[in-house]
Parts: sequence; structure tokens; C-alpha cells
Amino acid sequence: MTIRTAIKVDINKPAFEQPHIHNRWHPEIPFAAKVAPGEVVNVECVDWTGGQIGNNDSADDIRDVDLNRVHYLSGPLEIEGAKPGDALLVEILEIQPFKEQNWGFTGVFHSKNGGGFLADKMPKAAKAIWDFEGIYAKSRHIPGVRFPGIIHPGLMGCAPSKELLAKWTERESGLCHSHGSMDVAKLPTADGAHPGAPALEGDDELAKRIREEGARTVPPREHGGNVDIKNLSRGSRTWMPVYLDGAKFSIGDLHFSQGDGEISFCGAIEMSGIITLKFGIIPGGVEALSLRQPMYLPGPVQPQFSPGRMLTFQGISVDADTGEQKFLDVHLAYKQTCLNAVKYLQRYGYSDYQIYLLLSAAPVEGHIAAIVDIPNACTTLGLPLDMFEFDVAPVGANMNDSLSGEVKVTKMITQDCPISDF
Amino acid sequence: MTIRTAIKVDINKPAFEQPHIHNRWHPEIPFAAKVAPGEVVNVECVDWTGGQIGNNDSADDIRDVDLNRVHYLSGPLEIEGAKPGDALLVEILEIQPFKEQNWGFTGVFHSKNGGGFLADKMPKAAKAIWDFEGIYAKSRHIPGVRFPGIIHPGLMGCAPSKELLAKWTERESGLCHSHGSMDVAKLPTADGAHPGAPALEGDDELAKRIREEGARTVPPREHGGNVDIKNLSRGSRTWMPVYLDGAKFSIGDLHFSQGDGEISFCGAIEMSGIITLKFGIIPGGVEALSLRQPMYLPGPVQPQFSPGRMLTFQGISVDADTGEQKFLDVHLAYKQTCLNAVKYLQRYGYSDYQIYLLLSAAPVEGHIAAIVDIPNACTTLGLPLDMFEFDVAPVGANMNDSLSGEVKVTKMITQDCPISDF
Amino acid sequence: MTIRTAIKVDINKPAFEQPHIHNRWHPEIPFAAKVAPGEVVNVECVDWTGGQIGNNDSADDIRDVDLNRVHYLSGPLEIEGAKPGDALLVEILEIQPFKEQNWGFTGVFHSKNGGGFLADKMPKAAKAIWDFEGIYAKSRHIPGVRFPGIIHPGLMGCAPSKELLAKWTERESGLCHSHGSMDVAKLPTADGAHPGAPALEGDDELAKRIREEGARTVPPREHGGNVDIKNLSRGSRTWMPVYLDGAKFSIGDLHFSQGDGEISFCGAIEMSGIITLKFGIIPGGVEALSLRQPMYLPGPVQPQFSPGRMLTFQGISVDADTGEQKFLDVHLAYKQTCLNAVKYLQRYGYSDYQIYLLLSAAPVEGHIAAIVDIPNACTTLGLPLDMFEFDVAPVGANMNDSLSGEVKVTKMITQDCPISDF
Amino acid sequence: MTIRTAIKVDINKPAFEQPHIHNRWHPEIPFAAKVAPGEVVNVECVDWTGGQIGNNDSADDIRDVDLNRVHYLSGPLEIEGAKPGDALLVEILEIQPFKEQNWGFTGVFHSKNGGGFLADKMPKAAKAIWDFEGIYAKSRHIPGVRFPGIIHPGLMGCAPSKELLAKWTERESGLCHSHGSMDVAKLPTADGAHPGAPALEGDDELAKRIREEGARTVPPREHGGNVDIKNLSRGSRTWMPVYLDGAKFSIGDLHFSQGDGEISFCGAIEMSGIITLKFGIIPGGVEALSLRQPMYLPGPVQPQFSPGRMLTFQGISVDADTGEQKFLDVHLAYKQTCLNAVKYLQRYGYSDYQIYLLLSAAPVEGHIAAIVDIPNACTTLGLPLDMFEFDVAPVGANMNDSLSGEVKVTKMITQDCPISDF
Repeated sequence: MTIRTAIKVDINKPAFEQPHIHNRWHPEIPFAAKVAPGEVVNVECVDWTGGQIGNNDSADDIRDVDLNRVHYLSGPLEIEGAKPGDALLVEILEIQPFKEQNWGFTGVFHSKNGGGFLADKMPKAAKAIWDFEGIYAKSRHIPGVRFPGIIHPGLMGCAPSKELLAKWTERESGLCHSHGSMDVAKLPTADGAHPGAPALEGDDELAKRIREEGARTVPPREHGGNVDIKNLSRGSRTWMPVYLDGAKFSIGDLHFSQGDGEISFCGAIEMSGIITLKFGIIPGGVEALSLRQPMYLPGPVQPQFSPGRMLTFQGISVDADTGEQKFLDVHLAYKQTCLNAVKYLQRYGYSDYQIYLLLSAAPVEGHIAAIVDIPNACTTLGLPLDMFEFDVAPVGANMNDSLSGEVKVTKMITQDCPISDF
Repeated sequence: MTIRTAIKVDINKPAFEQPHIHNRWHPEIPFAAKVAPGEVVNVECVDWTGGQIGNNDSADDIRDVDLNRVHYLSGPLEIEGAKPGDALLVEILEIQPFKEQNWGFTGVFHSKNGGGFLADKMPKAAKAIWDFEGIYAKSRHIPGVRFPGIIHPGLMGCAPSKELLAKWTERESGLCHSHGSMDVAKLPTADGAHPGAPALEGDDELAKRIREEGARTVPPREHGGNVDIKNLSRGSRTWMPVYLDGAKFSIGDLHFSQGDGEISFCGAIEMSGIITLKFGIIPGGVEALSLRQPMYLPGPVQPQFSPGRMLTFQGISVDADTGEQKFLDVHLAYKQTCLNAVKYLQRYGYSDYQIYLLLSAAPVEGHIAAIVDIPNACTTLGLPLDMFEFDVAPVGANMNDSLSGEVKVTKMITQDCPISDF
Repeated sequence: MTIRTAIKVDINKPAFEQPHIHNRWHPEIPFAAKVAPGEVVNVECVDWTGGQIGNNDSADDIRDVDLNRVHYLSGPLEIEGAKPGDALLVEILEIQPFKEQNWGFTGVFHSKNGGGFLADKMPKAAKAIWDFEGIYAKSRHIPGVRFPGIIHPGLMGCAPSKELLAKWTERESGLCHSHGSMDVAKLPTADGAHPGAPALEGDDELAKRIREEGARTVPPREHGGNVDIKNLSRGSRTWMPVYLDGAKFSIGDLHFSQGDGEISFCGAIEMSGIITLKFGIIPGGVEALSLRQPMYLPGPVQPQFSPGRMLTFQGISVDADTGEQKFLDVHLAYKQTCLNAVKYLQRYGYSDYQIYLLLSAAPVEGHIAAIVDIPNACTTLGLPLDMFEFDVAPVGANMNDSLSGEVKVTKMITQDCPISDF
Repeated sequence: MTIRTAIKVDINKPAFEQPHIHNRWHPEIPFAAKVAPGEVVNVECVDWTGGQIGNNDSADDIRDVDLNRVHYLSGPLEIEGAKPGDALLVEILEIQPFKEQNWGFTGVFHSKNGGGFLADKMPKAAKAIWDFEGIYAKSRHIPGVRFPGIIHPGLMGCAPSKELLAKWTERESGLCHSHGSMDVAKLPTADGAHPGAPALEGDDELAKRIREEGARTVPPREHGGNVDIKNLSRGSRTWMPVYLDGAKFSIGDLHFSQGDGEISFCGAIEMSGIITLKFGIIPGGVEALSLRQPMYLPGPVQPQFSPGRMLTFQGISVDADTGEQKFLDVHLAYKQTCLNAVKYLQRYGYSDYQIYLLLSAAPVEGHIAAIVDIPNACTTLGLPLDMFEFDVAPVGANMNDSLSGEVKVTKMITQDCPISDF
């Protein structure tokens, strides 16, 4: 009658002292638990920073976060019978925060420690704490909004084979070399690495190997990983490639909510909690399903905003401030799109950092609109009007007749979120 | 009782012989008609190629299309009372194909003449003709699918001021120079230019100026233009910047349907038809709404597929074939996402060109998932399962119990679409 | 390329002078046109009253309507190959008003001539004229609202066999007898009957038989008929029983929009127009599908209001005014539900007749909630908040924090709709 | 950080031994806890039978259930500051089953003990046990289906004033008299009554008064009560009349899922669990909001099935078996609608009892279609196709071309649910 908890964590204990979580991808991390196909199990997860961020009104902890000690994952799970070349079918059945930690956080990383999508405009660290009221999140640091989260894990996947791990390291090192910068990728480092059980059970040799070789968890890769897809929520089913016997599936980085792009990097509402999972195995599924990367079906239960209530901003691959023109640069187009939304919401008294946090954390929709209309890509960002306490729709937005009218804006918000500089 | 038609076109006459359509952006193109704020009017539009493509079973016309003679727009409309700095509010009330031209086309441009998003994999020209059955489109060239279109104009906007036009030309020329290539932007050219009325009414000087200076219509820009946003459909309202007295609003490039990205360039279901519009004016709206680029509310009437019926592919900024690693390259990530979908659908017997056309034309959802997780961007592409005649869901997709099972695929499709090479 | 029009009507000519429309159900009405399975055809329809109602500001025509001359249907169509016992699959592909009659009407029938659901409270005749703006309807008689219609035919079905017709007449006569009232059903009457072609082509004997025996079109019956299901809109597919060779399918009573229950009887936005159809045949489908009555799949294209924007009223089977208690009386529960909505909306200055018309015509959702909780049935009525120009949500409706607050209502509407008494 | 639990229950202890639950409505039941407006609290609830039904494979407990000992409600809560005439705004933030009781049940009551909507066709008792897998429910007794629940409380409301209570008793007694039957309403009875704290704390006089006078909880009434509205789920906000100082709000009868009508009486997936609530107060709201009965906004988070995937049955107020014709009898129409669905699903091997249970418990949509088309009312019932493991759509249901085809049905289900007779 009660669902078995396959992996337990202790949110009051340092993450790196816990045996069944790890923060690197490596084929040799030993199984933390065994699960049969078709079995429903709970997996507990710490938040992605392993408890580095506090429920307080300072952004100093965000500013000072140790980015080598992040993405603590629960696992790896042995899925009985899974073999290399199989597809693992992962169904997410429920996700809930821990009852005793009924809150989450969103951060803007400092440009000198991680940065984020809009770091050139907003270089300081900032933070918002969110309180959970059942399906809703609200923040004392971003007044005037409350929204239902599309709860999901930011990160899951099967451990890479030795060969795949080597390929990752090689190509990411190559990128650093070709860019002449160690900032374009996160290469393996023993610093901050937590190999899980081997580190705690005295298998120093294995622990060392994992620390030194283990792939960082920041990027999404062909096994899935940190894809940060907000719609991998309750009821979703994902088909993932298996590389090792038993699959070695790990999961973590739970998000109460996130906007498309998770733009501020620490941009979701990050939380600890419990995820309920079920697994299936499709023998030979990688080949049979042409599975070069995971694919998925979103779940049937999501917040529903009417399309007519999504205020949508556009952006193109021209920097509106400098006038610089780029060629089909979707990254720049989405940046402009976000900045257009920032400008708009400032009219209500929100600070740029508050909006940055909000666009990161709320269920905003980021779409690719035009991607071949040279030289400009065009992207869009849809903002649910219904999440605001007051009406943020532009004049003419209701289904009225003449459409014409004067703009009247009242500044609604007068208090900022915590911001920290060095 | 009958809606007034503000602009009429003749689909049996060459586009460049018609006075109220034009295919360049220029501030001096004279008004084609006058509309009062709050008035409901029809505007007729030719298809974007002005009739270059036939309803037949050859892709030769796609291969040979003259890309200087495209994007014929209806307009410009004088919106009474609109002034520079105002926001023009454009409501799209209905779009219908002409009764006597109840079909549309999707093309893959040849890599030597236009190309497209996946031109390195699919360099030849290809075509699909779509027949409209009320809200549905189906194609004899892509059997086994039928879907409801999200009908919309690919292109609309107010004419630029002289200054804005100069800025466009300068920055796009600059791009060509910095890339050392004339292929990265479409610069003004008199070749194929249609200035509208001046060309037909003997104002040769003006016609010449428009031809030589007029901005090309391919890219989306800060006035809107060719944004190719599939959700600008019935019921949508767009707030757009006005640069000139009377707004000089033009519209065209009607799409019966389009996927996010319109990837094959001629990728929507291109059609001629009638669009029903209403306008409002927000005085000083550019400043008052912080309107650096258009923003919009989608309409309330759209096809509704359950989120649980959208098979969603992922892609990252690593080329799966060459292994090349790029830095947060969303363009590459979306290309990989599309190619992952291509691979998958080939299992059912579709050719790569058929799938390319389908992903361009059907209402697929292209989302930005992760955009800060260095070095990989992650994008997703959602494909409505319900548009296929046969079940294309992977094994384990229904809400069953064990999730495990064998893959069984029957090749369903045995006939290809028209393809043309030089 | 152009869709064939299988049945044409002339909206400027009296309905009873037109050969391909009829207003009684009878097996012997001759085929008006032939359609092959899989063919896409247009069928034109007059409005259900055959032009009795004018676009003016008086409700006298509603008050004086001749209810024996209504429900003019286009048909019957011969569906090639359909046989008794087959299921006819009817797909609705598109519905549009005639371009030259771009308006519709909603009426409240006078209690002495037809009446309606709330006739004891609102006994007079009333009318609203609606203008169509593409997907939207708005009325000068009910200011402050505009909404997208769920366009649909109120009435369609295959002609009954002789036996089925006899069964209908018998059981409805029986009801009149047992109630001792001729007001509880509409029995056959030659008065106002239009048998279609036979009446106009001199087949007097057949015309007489149809007039005298033909079933009235008011009630829904096991063949479908006047089901008034608002979701039988674009893209819907209905499986219907066939009773006669060739199916003899007729359709009419087009509605631009309707609320669940179509409560004021003439309660939809009634219009003339063109419906686009396609047919399939399921041999032996009545037996094979256990098809005792039609079943259907709604289409994928409908207005989407967020569930969180549907203000929903409740009602139980107790008359709130008299205190009378009925036993599981859903009819009374829905009446109370509607009256609760009337009371609420009156706060904004709407008259009871305006609200009655609005609840009839707008896409309101009428649900059965509790039907076994003796002695009270409970029903609900959901009203889309987004269709109003001004905010009609009760205080506390946005996603704010404390939920508490004072009610502030400004009377917005000061002008009534046309109302007529004898 | 942790949400306070205002009312605790013990699911291992008889309900009538617990002080903070009660199963009658009475103004004098003492407050069980106090809650401030704006505070978020948990309230624990036993299942509606107070533990009479076991997780086993016999329907004997359903057959033998004591219907005087049901609808145990948690409360009443004192909402600080609420006064008679105020509107209480109740926001439901979350509902979860107890972790240690991760299952629910649906029952068909025996016609000799409670009965249900289809008791004349299915008079025996039947039962299905449902296991919860996060958002999904599935039953070993109804194989082949799994669906996401729209979780909600079946019952909530503020305690009636003395006067209102008297009115209820009078009118329901009156109904019994006028029908000459004690079966048409549940009148007050001390038998099985649980008055809450007074019974356990020695206030015998008060306990006796509550037992003898307390209104039964079966029917929905003007305070709300047992409305069984499936969409009062997470995120919903309900405005309810307050009759007494402090509101005396009680809640219970948690449903993991329910179809419109909850037709088998014990028809939802009944469960115990925890509901998270927040309250607001609208001073004078009864008058100011014309609040004759509660009204609500559904929450934004619900299962989303495409409208095109809801197989919808129709029914009219004619008994298809006896041929009996009733006058606008919505109750009969919905019964026929349900029976049409039963017939259809039997083709797949389901027994009539299994379908009865399924239509009661699954999120089926029951709509009022036509309610004035004399003499027949018409109702519809929409069934989500996506909840079945195998395809239950009729031939022609996918978006294919010709629509025609042969019916092929394979009997999928071979095992029945538990059924008990006396």
C-alpha cells in the first residue's frame, strides 16, 4: 500500500557525506539501489546545490556558491534486466517537495561566478525565495505574482559507458582549446566532486578515478542529463538510451517550476523533494526507435492558461542596444526577446533583477519562430497574464471593440529582491 | 452586413502587374487603401511567390523559383490617425483561402537557390501540394497525415521610416562585409522588385527609388515583418510600432499551417487568400508600452492536442554525425532536434524529404529548453501524434502498466514526394 | 480545386419555395443531391426560421414567429452505398456564415408562443442581433461582451424509416395524452410543413403525405436530430444510424455559437451559411458499434479558455424562490443554476433578458455534477470571464495572497435589449 | 516552512471515536480548530465511509455498508472574523492521499441498500479497488485503464444556521410526505450520527440534540455540501455563504477522481488524505455577490485531453428499452447516455458492472446539451480515449481520408470485478 523509497537522502546532512548521491557522471559509480521494471518507487533528492542556499533575505550565498559542488543526483539505480542498447522508459508519476522544506529558491549567478543568460545587463547575484502553497509558488522577493508550477526534474539520465564518457571529455576539451578559454565548458575536476558510496566506504581508488574522470553535470548531452525541459513533469514518459548493464539511472535537480531556457542558470525554483518513478525496458530500443537522444511524451496534467492570455514578446538576432547584427543567431534572438519582456514589466515597478528571476522561474514559453529568414532568427516568449495579481495586459487586450485607447500604468511594485555584488 | 474588402488582388494575373501589392519595404510606397480604427475589413493576398508554384507533381518550379520576386504584400494601408510613435493594434479576425484556390504548397528550396535549415542533408528541391478540407490539410505527396492548420500570415508590419530603412541596409550590408559573403543577408536589389502603384502608374522616379532602396522582406525586423510566428492566428492581437503617418501597414505570406521554425524556408503551407482585420491605435504606445518590437496575444481558437499526445524530440549543440561541439549554439541544437525527428519517422517509410516538408508545415512545437548549460543548448520539437492515420507512438506510449515491450514497426508509406535536382 | 456545392439555397427567397430544403422528417422526401463517401462537399443552409427574423431593433418578429415553419433543413442527401443498419460517419470540415449575411440572432420566445427555459421569470419575447467579426460575435443589444463562437449545426440526422417514424408519432402522442396537454410535444401538422421538392414539383399526393405524417423537427431523437450539441463543431466526426438506402441525411439550424442547454429555445446565435462535409460508411455499424443513438468525437479546434477563468455557478433541485423541493430534478437544478448566474450578472447593469440571451448564446458549459445525492441533483454552469470587456470576476479571483477583500461593483451597462409583449 | 495541520485524524481508529470529525450538519457542533484568513493549513480527512471498505477482492463490504454512518467531515473550522452574511473564499491548494493508504475504492451500492443511478439495470453491489501511482489511478478490478485523477473533495460547506437547518428538515420531510416514501430523502436520524467532540467529551445533551436534529450530509444544498463537483480541484476558489460567526466550515469525502454525476453513488474513487486550504473573507459577500449558492473558479491544473480524443455518447429522455417517453427529463436522458456508453464498451469484454464503476470514477464529462427541445432533453457523456491501454475509438476515428471501414473488435478483457448479492 505504501510506495517503497528506493533512495533516501538527509537534507540536514552535507550532500557529500551521503552515499547514494553523486555529482559526476561515471560508469563505475556503484548501484545505490535496485528497481524492477514496472515497480513504483520513490527517490528522494537534495536540491541541486546540496543545501548551499538558505531561506533568507540575502543573495550572498548565491554569489558565493561553489559551482563544482552542484547537481547532486540520486542514484544510480539498477533497473533489473536493462542492457546496453535497450531503451529505458522512465515514467514520472509524482514530484513533491519535502513537507519539512516547503520552499525553493531562484538565483541569478554573479557574472564572476557562473553568470547567466543576461549577465552583461545584470552582472550581480540576486535571489528569490519561493514559498509553496500546494500547487502554487509565491515569493516575498517578487511581490504581485503567484503561479502553479510545472514541477519536474531538471536532470536525469543513464550513466555513460567508458567510451561515451571519453567522447564527452574529448569534445568538450576540444571546445576549450579551440576557443582558447576554459569558460566555455566545464571539464572534469576532482575539486568538489562527490563520487557517492566509494568515497564514503573506503574505496579510495575508485573514488579517485570517478573524481578525476567523471563528466560534469552541467550540460545536457545525448544521454539526456541536464536538459532542463520544463514539461518533463508528472505523467511524462521518456525513452532514454541505456549504455550499461542495469542502466545506472540517476536523477536530481528538482524544479518546482521553470521557464523555457531557465535563463538565469540557477533559474528554476530549485528544491529538494521526492520523485515517484516507474521504469520499463524496450529491448534493443536504441536501434529500433532510432534513439540518438531521449524523446518523451509530456504528461497530461499541466497548468492550462488560455492561449489568449499569454502575452508574447518577440526578439531578433540584432542587439537592440548596440545595433549589432548577427547571422541567424537564435541565442541572441532569445536574449533580445527576454530583454523586451524585461523592459515591458519594468513599467509596473519591478526591477530588472526581479524580472530576470521571474522569467527564469515562471512557466514562460520560449519558442523558435523563424530560423531560416536570413539574417535574422526570431524567437518568442509567452508570459501568462493570469499569474499577476494586477492586470499587466497592454491596453486593448480584452475582447473589446475599438481596440484603441490610452496607456495608463500605475507603478505597483516598490520593493526589490536581494542583490549581492562582490 | 457585408465586410468591405479594402484591397483586392487577382490570382490569375502576375503579381507585379497589380498596384496594391509590393515586395519591398519602403516609406514612400503610396497608400493602397484607407481604414478607420475599429473598422472590420478584408484584405486579399496572393501567395508569397506571387503564383510561381503550380498544383502539380513536379518540384521543378520550387527548384527554379525567383527569390527576388517573393513576399508580395498587400498594402500599405493608411490607418486613419496613426502617427509615428503610436502603437498600432492589429487584430486578425479570420483567414480563409480563396474558394477557387483551395490548396497550398510547401517547398524545400534547392541548396543552390535558397536552401533551407537542413540543406546540408537534403540539398535538392522538393514539394508537397496540400488540399484543404475545411480546417484540415492533407497532401497526396505525404500520405498518412492530415492536420488542422493554425492559419496565419507569415508577414506583417508597418513601413519603416527613412531612418529605420537606412539602419537596416547599413547593418545588413555590414554583416555581408564582415562575413565576406553576400549569402548571409538579402541586400536591396532592383531585380525583381515590385514597388506597387508607382510602377504601374508611371511614377518612374519613385518606382526606381523604391526598387533600389527598398528593404528585402525575408528577415523579421524590429517592425515585425517576416516573423513567421505560427500562433499569430485568428483572434490574435499584435501591438506594433508606427513609424509614419497613417502607419503604412502591409501584410501577406499567408500560411494555412506552419511548424515552429518554418524550417525548409518555403516551409509553411503557402497559400493565397483573404484576411479579415481590425485596427486600433494606442497614442504614444511605443514609449508607453516600451515597445521595442511587436508583442502579441495569441487568439483563443487553436487546435488542441493533449500535451500527452505530443511526441517530443530533443537535440543539443553537438553535431551527431561529425561529433563537432559548438558553444550554446541553439541553431545547431534545433537542427539536431529536427534530424532526430527525421530519423524516427523514417521507420514508417517516409523519405527524409517528406519528413522535412512535414516538420516545416505541420503544427510542431519548437521550444528552447536549456540555453545556459554550457556548452550545450537544448531544444525540443513536439510532434502531434494525432495527425497520423496510423499509430506512430513508440511502444509504451499508452497509459499502460509495465511500460516494457518489444518494438514492432510496419513500414506504412511507400511513395515519395516530388524532388528536383539541377 | 473548388469544393462542389451539393445543395444551394437562396436566402432572399421564402424557404418554402425552395426544393432542397424541408422542415419535417419523413422517409419519402426525395433525394436533393448525391454525395460519394470520401467526397468533400458544401451544403448551404437557411437559418432555422427560414428568414422570419430581421436585423433590426425590435423583438416583435421573435414574438410573432410561426413555430410550425421552422427548422428548415437542407437535404436529404443520398450517400452512395449507405444501407439500413450501416453507420454513417459525418465529418464537419468547416462552417461559415454567408458573406452577404454576416450576422445572426438570438431570441427569447414569448411564453404564449414557444416560451423557453426561464419563461416563468422572463415571459416576454426578446432579441439580440449579433454581428460577426471573423471568429467573434458581438451584439449591439448586449454591450460589453464579445466571444469566439463554437460554430456548429444544431440539427442533423438520417431520415427515419417508416417504422421509426410511426414509433415517434405514437410515443409523442402518448405523452400528450398522458399529460392531457398538446403542449408537451409537437405532433405532426400539415400547417407550415414544407415537404421540399414534392410540394414544388406537383407531386401533391406525396407532399400531402409528408405534410400530414412528417415528424416535427424540434426534439432530438435516436437518429440525432435537434441535439443542439455545441461541440459538434469543425473537425467533429459523428457516427449515426442509417435507416434507409442512401441514408437520406439532412442538416440545418446552423449556430454561430450556443451555450449548453440553448436555454432560451431560440437561444443559439442562429444564422444561415455554408457547411462543408465529408461522409464515410461503416457497413453494419449500428450493430457492430452498438449504436443506439449517434456518438461523436468533437473536433480539435475550439476556443480555449483557461479552466481558471470559467466562473462557475451551481444549482440544486430546490426552487430558491418558492422553496419547493423536487426529487433529483436536473431540469430544476439547471434552472436554478442559470438563475444564480442571472442574479450575479445583474450587478453589472445587465437586464435579466440580456443575461438570458447571453447564457443561451455564449459558449457556457453546463455540467451535471451530482445526480444521485437524494433528494438534490446539482448542476453547474461555467461562464468564460474573458468574454467580457470589463472584469466580472468576484473579488479574490486573481491569484493573490490574502483572498479577502471588499466587493466593489460599478454598474457598467445602462441600455437594454429589445423586448416585446403582446 | 512546514504547513500547520489544523485537524488530524487517525485512519486506524473508528471515525466515531474521533473528536474533530462529524457526520451531520448542525450549528452547534463546536469548533475543532481555528484558522486565520490567509493562513495555509492542512486538514486531514478519513474516507467518506470512515473505513468501512477494505482493500480486498470482495464487494460484501459495499453491499453491507451502513449508510447512516457516512460522510465523516473534518471540522468545523473557525475562520477568524467570518460573520453571517459574509462570503467565505475557500482556496484548495493541494490534496494528497495518505502515504500509508495509497489506494481508494469505488462502489456500486446494492439496490436494497442505497442503490445508484443505474440500479434497475445493475442492482447488485460491486467494487473496484484503485491503486494510486502518483497522478494516476488503476484498478486490478477494471483492467486496461489508467487515468490521471482530478482530485477534489466531494463535500464542503459552512454549517447552517438554526433557521436554515429547520428549513432543510421541513422541505425534505415535505418531499417524503408528498411522495409517500421515506426513500426520496434522508431525514435526520440519531442512528449512526456522529456529533464530533460533544459525543466524546461528555456533553450528552448537546450530542443528543445534534444527533436528533442534524441534517444528513447526502444532498448538496444552498450552502454547498455534497455537490460532488469534480472540478473543485487543486487551485480552485469557491465563494460560499457564511451563516454563523466563525463560519464553521467542514470538509471531507475526498475523491481521487470522479466522473460527472458520480453515477454509482459511491462512484468516485473514495479515499482518505490531506487537503491543503487557505481562506479569505468577503464582508457582506452574500448580498454583495448575490450569492444564493456557492460559486467557484476551477483551478488551472487539470488533466488535459484533446477535445478530439473524447468519445462522446448522447441520450434522450426516452427509455430505449421500454420505449417510454418522458417530458424534458434530464435525469432519464443522462441515464440513457450512460447506458449507451455501457453498451459500447461491452464490445471490449468489460462487464456492465465494470463499466458502471468506470463511468462513475473516471474523469468523464457529463453535459447538458438540449433542455428545451420538447419533449426530449439531450445530454452527452465524454469518455477520454487516452485512458485505455488499447484503442477503443470507433473505426474512422483517426484523421484519415475516406472515413469508411469495417468494424473489427477484439474482446480484450476477460475478468470481472467483485460483485455481491444478498
